[in-house]
Parts: sequence; structure tokens; C-alpha cells
Amino acid sequence: MADSDWIVGFHAVLAGLEGDRSAEQLWLQEGRHDGRLRRLEAVARDRRVAVRRVPRRRLDEVAAGQPHNGCALRAAPVRLAGIDDIVAPGDQPGRVVVLDSVEDPHNLGAVIRTAAAFGVDGVVVAGPSAPPLGGAAAKAAAGQLDRVRLVRVTVAADALRTLRDAGYWIVGAATAGVPCRGYDPTGRWALCLGSEQKGLRAKTRSAIDELVAIPMADGVESLNLSVAAAVLMYELVGRSTAPDG
Amino acid sequence: MADSDWIVGFHAVLAGLEGDRSAEQLWLQEGRHDGRLRRLEAVARDRRVAVRRVPRRRLDEVAAGQPHNGCALRAAPVRLAGIDDIVAPGDQPGRVVVLDSVEDPHNLGAVIRTAAAFGVDGVVVAGPSAPPLGGAAAKAAAGQLDRVRLVRVTVAADALRTLRDAGYWIVGAATAGVPCRGYDPTGRWALCLGSEQKGLRAKTRSAIDELVAIPMADGVESLNLSVAAAVLMYELVGRSTAPDG
Repeated sequence: MADSDWIVGFHAVLAGLEGDRSAEQLWLQEGRHDGRLRRLEAVARDRRVAVRRVPRRRLDEVAAGQPHNGCALRAAPVRLAGIDDIVAPGDQPGRVVVLDSVEDPHNLGAVIRTAAAFGVDGVVVAGPSAPPLGGAAAKAAAGQLDRVRLVRVTVAADALRTLRDAGYWIVGAATAGVPCRGYDPTGRWALCLGSEQKGLRAKTRSAIDELVAIPMADGVESLNLSVAAAVLMYELVGRSTAPDG
Repeated sequence: MADSDWIVGFHAVLAGLEGDRSAEQLWLQEGRHDGRLRRLEAVARDRRVAVRRVPRRRLDEVAAGQPHNGCALRAAPVRLAGIDDIVAPGDQPGRVVVLDSVEDPHNLGAVIRTAAAFGVDGVVVAGPSAPPLGGAAAKAAAGQLDRVRLVRVTVAADALRTLRDAGYWIVGAATAGVPCRGYDPTGRWALCLGSEQKGLRAKTRSAIDELVAIPMADGVESLNLSVAAAVLMYELVGRSTAPDG
């Protein structure tokens, strides 16, 4: 699968932002605040597409000779869903994974692959610096990128509040919390994991109903992010449906 | 942590093979069968150190100018244990993970990290081509390489039979098998996983008591190796001890 595509130039970027849901991230040139860039920024905020200010040379790089007008849009090689698309209808059971500020594309891809395997409805990839869904992430996802709905948002807490308002119980992964073994999240749940280095940010924690922890041997601080996500998904999926075996 | 060290030259290699348990793999020059190399090969077999025949230029590379006499020994940056060292005494509970012919050093390191977190007694790394325990594997293990006993063997089936003779129930990870959810392996168990590409080899399967599978959504074939290992360890550890929560 190809890496993410870059769309450059005002009109192309605007069309990309408005046209479909594959827009991953908008880059705007540092120090440049003309009316067109302000308009793009407003549209991106409205559609919850992450916005970054970058030096002009970064834009020159991705534009590769084309005129970019101080803007570029990264589009995912997969069609992205909106947060509303992954909310289960009525009071049906729902399973969502939210990754806040994940850093490593291999972890991102591995979590998506596991989510597909465990029948999770959607994965929300939050944070303006989260890796693109192409390249290394797509490789680690082993062809499962299109088997689970993917949503990109800038602020994890916003997505969590939307889910909470829709009756989801928001579970946060932490090193200290309720032991996950036997944990019953009820029928509609969202599992949120923070970044590899920093874990859950305070703002994200504020939108979480309960922290859960994987029981570990003394002296071991943490698991690999994709491993922790898999163990928690396995536990939550098992509790929220009839046992498999 | 440094990558594996190479010891070259007959006397140094012999001392390395006989001296301690950090020997990971013996390289002998292709087409060269003098008495010294035959002696090294015999000692390596006796101590269950993997032996590979390699072209002379590979030896020249690792020797980096030193005379190598047609032999080189890769030593782990960690002290290796023997298979007998990880058998739990008497009829105490025992937990072992056996990786047969794992290919990716990141998976190897991630499995070791998870094994340490879940209080597994030892990890057996089998196969003549398994990655070294330094470099990428050490990085993925995140400092946990010395928190779990590590054993290197050439043939996984031999290690499994030793464990079985010591009263271990040998569980193999497969895409089809008894569902792992709720699986009770009894108090002494070894979990064996095959390679990323090929799964369990026939010879390895012959030493396995029962195949278990992680329940997955329709159409999804497999999980990442380190993810599958983590889910199975989590399930088996939970069943073979008092529940944590």
C-alpha cells in the first residue's frame, strides 16, 4: 500500500478538505496568515482535521516543485470515517479504540490489525502528530486497514466526550488502575491508550470514566503499546460478548 | 545495550563454547572440515549451540581483519540459561514460552518484554536462524532481557520434549485449535509459537500436546506474533494462578 498522498495548492487543498473524509492533516506555512490560509484553517477545524504550522522548506519538500501557496494536505490511502460513523446505533453493543498521540507507526498499524481481529467497530487516531496511515503503519496492519473504520481527530478528549454522550463507558489504559482481569465494561465501551512515552495526557484523562491496568510482575513498568492494547481489547471483548470457549 | 559480540579464531571460540552460557551461534566456513572445526562442531552440538555453515566472506566480515581459522562464535550480550535451569523444581507451577524460528528481532524482544511482565520463568529461543539477542531485540525488550531466563536451542522439539518429560503441558499457538478463552493449561505449561510466516513446523507440532487458537473475527487470518504471544500468555497466566482482580 502506498504512503499517504500530499495535495498542495489552495484550490486542491480546499477541495480535498471538503470533498471526502481521507484528509489526515493540514500543513500551513509558518508566519503566513493570508485570507486563504485562514479559510483553510477554519474548514479544517470544522471538519476536525489536524492543523500544523510548518517551515516553508517542509512544504517545498512535499510539493516537489509544484506551487503550494503555503498549504498542503496529507490524505490517507484509506477512506476515513467520522466519529459519528463508529457509534453503534440505538443501544447496541459498541467497541471503539482511541489512540491519543501514538508515536510509532508500527504500533498504530499493529493496533489496527488487532482491532480488526477482535471485531472492534472503529479506531480513532487522535493528535496532530500521529503517524500517517500509509507506509509503515499500513505494513504493520497487514492488510487490515480497510477492515475496521478509521477516524482521525485532533483532540482525543473531544472524541471521547462524543462517545460518552452516546452512552459509551470510557476506559483508559494506565499502569495503575482497576485490574483489567475480569473487568466488565458494559455493552458499549471505548478503550483509550496514550502515547508510548507519556501515557495518557491530563486533558484526555479528564474525559475517561475509569482507568484499568494490566496486572504485571513487580519491577516491570510497562508493556509495548500494541501489546497492552491487544491484551485489553481481548479482555474487554471477552467480557462484552458471550464467551468463545 | 550492545549488539551481540563475535569471538573469532579456534582457541577463543572453543573457550567461548566451553566457558559459559552466552554462546548463541557457531559459524563454520563452508567446505572446510579440518579436525579443529569438527571438534568445535561436536562441542557446539553437545552444548546445544546452533551451528551454521557460512561463506568465508561472512567470516571475514565479522572477524574484521583478525585471523578467524574458519570459525566464529556469536555471544549474547546477556547470560544464557540452560533448558534445565527454567524447569520449575518438584511439581511447582511452571511457565515457559518457546519461540520456534522467530524471524523479526522486534517480535523477539517484545515477547521477552511481555514474558517478563507476566512473570514467565523463561523464554526458549529455538532455531539456527533466530535473531541475536542484542541490537533490535534488546531495544524492543526495553531493558527486560535480564528479567527473564533466556535459553537458546537449535531444535524446538528437543526443548519441548525435555519440558514434557518434566511434567509440562505443551500448548501450541495456531489459527485453528481449542479456543484459548478459558483454556486451563494446568499448573506447568509451555506455550510454543512458530515463525511469523510459516507458523509451527511439523516437527515442532509433533512435540505439542494441544493446539490453541485466539478467537478472531471472520476473514482475519492472524495477529502479529508478539501480540498473539501476549494474549495467550495473559490467558494462560490468568488460568494457572489465582485471579488478579
